[in-house]
Amino acid sequence: MPALTNQQQHFIAQILQSSANPQPLNPIHPDGLGSAAVNIALAKYWGKRDAELNLPINGSVSIALPGLGTDTKIQLLPDGNEDQVFLNGHQLCGQSAFARRVSAFLDGFRIHPQRVFRVDTRNSVPTAAGLASSASGYAALVLALDALFGWQLPPSKLSMLARFGSGSASRSLYNGFAIWHRGEREDGLDSYAEAIDSYWPAFCVGLVKIDLHEKAVGSTAGMQQTVATCDLYQSWPQQAQRDLTTLCQAIHQQDFSTLGQTAEHNALSMHATMIATWPPILYWQPESVAAMQLVWQLRAQGIEVYFTMDAGPNLKLLLQHKDCNAVAQAFLEKGIPVEFIWPFATQAEKN
Amino acid sequence: MPALTNQQQHFIAQILQSSANPQPLNPIHPDGLGSAAVNIALAKYWGKRDAELNLPINGSVSIALPGLGTDTKIQLLPDGNEDQVFLNGHQLCGQSAFARRVSAFLDGFRIHPQRVFRVDTRNSVPTAAGLASSASGYAALVLALDALFGWQLPPSKLSMLARFGSGSASRSLYNGFAIWHRGEREDGLDSYAEAIDSYWPAFCVGLVKIDLHEKAVGSTAGMQQTVATCDLYQSWPQQAQRDLTTLCQAIHQQDFSTLGQTAEHNALSMHATMIATWPPILYWQPESVAAMQLVWQLRAQGIEVYFTMDAGPNLKLLLQHKDCNAVAQAFLEKGIPVEFIWPFATQAEKN
Repeated sequence: MPALTNQQQHFIAQILQSSANPQPLNPIHPDGLGSAAVNIALAKYWGKRDAELNLPINGSVSIALPGLGTDTKIQLLPDGNEDQVFLNGHQLCGQSAFARRVSAFLDGFRIHPQRVFRVDTRNSVPTAAGLASSASGYAALVLALDALFGWQLPPSKLSMLARFGSGSASRSLYNGFAIWHRGEREDGLDSYAEAIDSYWPAFCVGLVKIDLHEKAVGSTAGMQQTVATCDLYQSWPQQAQRDLTTLCQAIHQQDFSTLGQTAEHNALSMHATMIATWPPILYWQPESVAAMQLVWQLRAQGIEVYFTMDAGPNLKLLLQHKDCNAVAQAFLEKGIPVEFIWPFATQAEKN
Repeated sequence: MPALTNQQQHFIAQILQSSANPQPLNPIHPDGLGSAAVNIALAKYWGKRDAELNLPINGSVSIALPGLGTDTKIQLLPDGNEDQVFLNGHQLCGQSAFARRVSAFLDGFRIHPQRVFRVDTRNSVPTAAGLASSASGYAALVLALDALFGWQLPPSKLSMLARFGSGSASRSLYNGFAIWHRGEREDGLDSYAEAIDSYWPAFCVGLVKIDLHEKAVGSTAGMQQTVATCDLYQSWPQQAQRDLTTLCQAIHQQDFSTLGQTAEHNALSMHATMIATWPPILYWQPESVAAMQLVWQLRAQGIEVYFTMDAGPNLKLLLQHKDCNAVAQAFLEKGIPVEFIWPFATQAEKN
């Protein structure tokens, strides 16, 4: 198993210091359970200032999608040479990319280098299709570890551990809107997400599923390539910071137009930095462009719908409850199904 | 007719000062004829530092497409209230956008404010479909005026007059490769194009026609919107300058790989600045993305083909003579026709 760097070991030790059960790492339950929802960034995370600790170049804002996410169970195995990693009920080969990433993360939390874990992960979203299953995955895994070891860490600390696994996972500790603070410290101990206090039942997310296959270029590789070769990226942090501030205000004021415009502009600008990378990174499919054109057409007709996109071809629509029917109808006429998620509404409000 | 600004009048007067027949503006022939080819920018022009004089934020490099362009005949009419503008044999209403642009340009060259012109323009490319017909159009018009008035201006001066009509027209005075120098002066008298000395018979351009309808957002409006609202655009001039230098070297060394990579990266970066503009400007159609993906697929198979795109959905392929058959075949299998242009080759070499 790959050893953690000194910086990484120090980071984990610092976080666990404040836990209820800091040393040694002994399980206090036979198994730990954790659940987390995926989140959709409205102000995107794109670019790391520190790859070892997953520290972002800019802060980001997200909305959680309840009902879509990850349930994880973790146990310490009495013996064995390597972690047993199950994904959606199937045991993965230890050499698979997914199992290796999980094991590398767990290296930070072993009682002895020899003790291995069994991890059972179930995703209710397709894995690695730009629906951010790694975000809910690492958040659920950290929550499961917290339960297994009885750390009782506060959400900000759990958020930092999740961030260590996957940047966007820092935001999946919360329901509703969340903000991941960029932080300033080199040791990464001030870069965590917090919930944004808001209850906005009319707020709706529409999932436009263009293609759910695994993406060709993973986010981490894509970010590295962008930071290394994209001239236009130099101006990204400035926009990211301004969009972050604008979005927080729009959420507090429930100003849907500002939220939608800022989120769409932010997402398109992030994709622009990918497109201006060499070799170019284009996550869009022809159908993605057709769906964007439909969104713009609907707006020209007075229906206020916006979109955001992540490292994949799928669109996530941002709209209000009152417009769901019209939007669903317009997409259906083009043969594109939309699935709606209401992050705040109860079942009664959805109908 | 809209009056020219003092700055514009001064600019034209300065250029005509050095002509063989500077004052008064008397026709020495009954009519003037001019012909010019369209050009495809390999390092793009996107953004004006002075809108009145059409001065660019960055220099650009292009290749002319012989056989595709504009033939223009201009005459002084003995009487009449407004210019007569013919496009492809049809007289345009004086209020049409095309006729008004031509008349506004001709305001700079009237003997008396009352004397009007007849302009007969024939394009062998679709008008305003991102195939740069305005480039060949203004270049041909300036050549026709030079003939009509017997100015005998050198190409650099004609290039500046053409630039005054449409920036990219400055490059359409030449066959083969051309470079439009950004210039430094405020009066615009050092911002002109020159031919790049090169003979490269294997060099080939493929036209992939996705959609030849008029574009929704014209280049000038698109540039203004980009400069005003796109944060990422701040880093564009730096890339544009570097790409210009790289492309000139690649042309001199006939280094096709460097030329292709730099041109494709430059075009995608220009489109990235449009995509990151608000409201977003996306000239791509779904089929544009499919064609890009095919180009990348061909490269992955070892066939060296690159693309560039202008303010429209169509792709222009950059390739070498030896790969034309394979590329034509691959596009044909996807139902996309490609038309090849050899900027340097004789008819015998094309076959």
